[in-house]
Amino acid sequence: MRYIDAFNHFSPKRYFDALVESPAGQKDIGKRVRGIPALYDLELRLKVVDQFPDYTQILSLGLPMVDRLWGPDKSPEMAKIANDGLAEVCAKHPDRFVGYSAVVPMNAPEAAAKEAERALKNGAHAVQLGTNVNGKPIDGKEFWPLYETIEKSGKPILLHPARSREMIDYQGEAKSKYEIWAILGWPYETSCTMARLIFSGVTTRLPDLKILVHHLGAMIPFFDARLETGWATLGSRTSDEDYGGVLKMLGKPMMHCFKDFYADTALCGGRIGTVCGLQFFGADHVLFASDAPFGPEGGASYIRETMKVIAALDIAESDKEKICHRNAQALFKLP
Amino acid sequence: MRYIDAFNHFSPKRYFDALVESPAGQKDIGKRVRGIPALYDLELRLKVVDQFPDYTQILSLGLPMVDRLWGPDKSPEMAKIANDGLAEVCAKHPDRFVGYSAVVPMNAPEAAAKEAERALKNGAHAVQLGTNVNGKPIDGKEFWPLYETIEKSGKPILLHPARSREMIDYQGEAKSKYEIWAILGWPYETSCTMARLIFSGVTTRLPDLKILVHHLGAMIPFFDARLETGWATLGSRTSDEDYGGVLKMLGKPMMHCFKDFYADTALCGGRIGTVCGLQFFGADHVLFASDAPFGPEGGASYIRETMKVIAALDIAESDKEKICHRNAQALFKLP
Repeated sequence: MRYIDAFNHFSPKRYFDALVESPAGQKDIGKRVRGIPALYDLELRLKVVDQFPDYTQILSLGLPMVDRLWGPDKSPEMAKIANDGLAEVCAKHPDRFVGYSAVVPMNAPEAAAKEAERALKNGAHAVQLGTNVNGKPIDGKEFWPLYETIEKSGKPILLHPARSREMIDYQGEAKSKYEIWAILGWPYETSCTMARLIFSGVTTRLPDLKILVHHLGAMIPFFDARLETGWATLGSRTSDEDYGGVLKMLGKPMMHCFKDFYADTALCGGRIGTVCGLQFFGADHVLFASDAPFGPEGGASYIRETMKVIAALDIAESDKEKICHRNAQALFKLP
Repeated sequence: MRYIDAFNHFSPKRYFDALVESPAGQKDIGKRVRGIPALYDLELRLKVVDQFPDYTQILSLGLPMVDRLWGPDKSPEMAKIANDGLAEVCAKHPDRFVGYSAVVPMNAPEAAAKEAERALKNGAHAVQLGTNVNGKPIDGKEFWPLYETIEKSGKPILLHPARSREMIDYQGEAKSKYEIWAILGWPYETSCTMARLIFSGVTTRLPDLKILVHHLGAMIPFFDARLETGWATLGSRTSDEDYGGVLKMLGKPMMHCFKDFYADTALCGGRIGTVCGLQFFGADHVLFASDAPFGPEGGASYIRETMKVIAALDIAESDKEKICHRNAQALFKLP
């Protein structure tokens, strides 16, 4: 089977060096990312990739995003450095890295739209977005020009959970301990942002915008009936805002909007979640992804376990081909 | 098939009247609960129950819990009123309501332990807890006497998500809109509290304490491999606290601790989530529950759809019997 790994992480050298030298990088973040060498050490990364025959990667920047590390005065420049670095790595090793997603400075929305346009013209295959910009939502009107640019390119958004300061500092004593914010908070983040992108009208306004979400849709598949019945009465739990017209504005059943997302298999090799998510999104909207280099063995373990899970699924071989590479070829416009 | 509905909601009259007259009840909460008559109107509730042959309920108080409505000066008294009211309803209609779970004033931990002891001796079949006490976690040492009391009784805790002020006010702009806090925030709450009860040592210290969680374990089944591999490095993302000994303290693999929970089928009639959750917890740890009277038709829709989902599962008839009533008989010590 041919595999295109749609969502995994790598930080090119010049960007990585700037990251660890940034104010945030000199604290926890720098220590943490340095502890994952396959995130920035190209030779090591190639060794991970080469363990798997007929396996290639679409590279996405490792977190954190530029807008968490630098203010709007500096983030546009850093996004460019990251994107050009990713392009260079791909150009050097096209047999291992078949493409990359660009980052954009979301704390500078106008510059974000410009950098998306530049990077996509320069060959980027997608734009990676965090689920929030330092705790602020990404569905505001200031981002519409960015989303229009991406829609026009025909290439997808890759949506990745972003830690926000509030996840750590303000989320309430009950969720701040034991790294709950990382293990459970991130998928929660992804789910919330999917809902917001729908209810704010972004997905209705831009019907051709393709969005690939991490963790196989996070909380959405398992809770499909909860969403459908719970949000059927959107507005009943709220007195300070009028949500009366939101569902009607969608122009189609709400759950269709959730199924319009694409979702990746980055579940760390979890089988029962993969079955659940695949049943929700269907084989045309699920893409193989490993989340490497996270997990044991510089990501090789996640790659291997995820391959095993898909191989063992009780579905048609043609569906497995879609999941493992055909959907990625179409979505990223690969040859 | 005989059905015992392990987790659904009803507020006895005297308690309900006090709720709507409380300061919080005079605002949003009162309006919202009044909009669900089968939550407090006994005649209406009986009509819902009587639509289903061989179907009975274990009653749990409708939210919010006493500790969110009243301070510690008043919450112990209100818990007693709620519990005695539930006991009375069950005594009057034992053919429909085969038992009830007691509430305890968690903002007054000593009184909570006392009320649990009193109510359990008085015939309560469980103790219902919210996942937080006004945003504060429920795994602190101040609650150990309460948990010891419940463990000694042999009866279970029913764990229900609790809205905290921080969910609304401080959770970040990105999650406060579109009732995301209710639809997605509540299952997130449940998942976080399960993790905290394990990592804080509560479940290790009290190995015979049985805890039934709402929504079939919320985020835990879908993300089983993420939890297992992500928390395998607990401590690596943290610099200000030492989590080095936490996993060792558990005395068994972490995922076994999650599987020790009992989980109910309250997924609003969702099929793919039910399959996923059942595969995680197994038929010995899953209990039929509807979450009535929430959902359409005063809860009848959730009851009916959940019954259908279980009937259609590709599992042994004996496993369906466990899920529909045998596990409940054992857990609640019913005749």
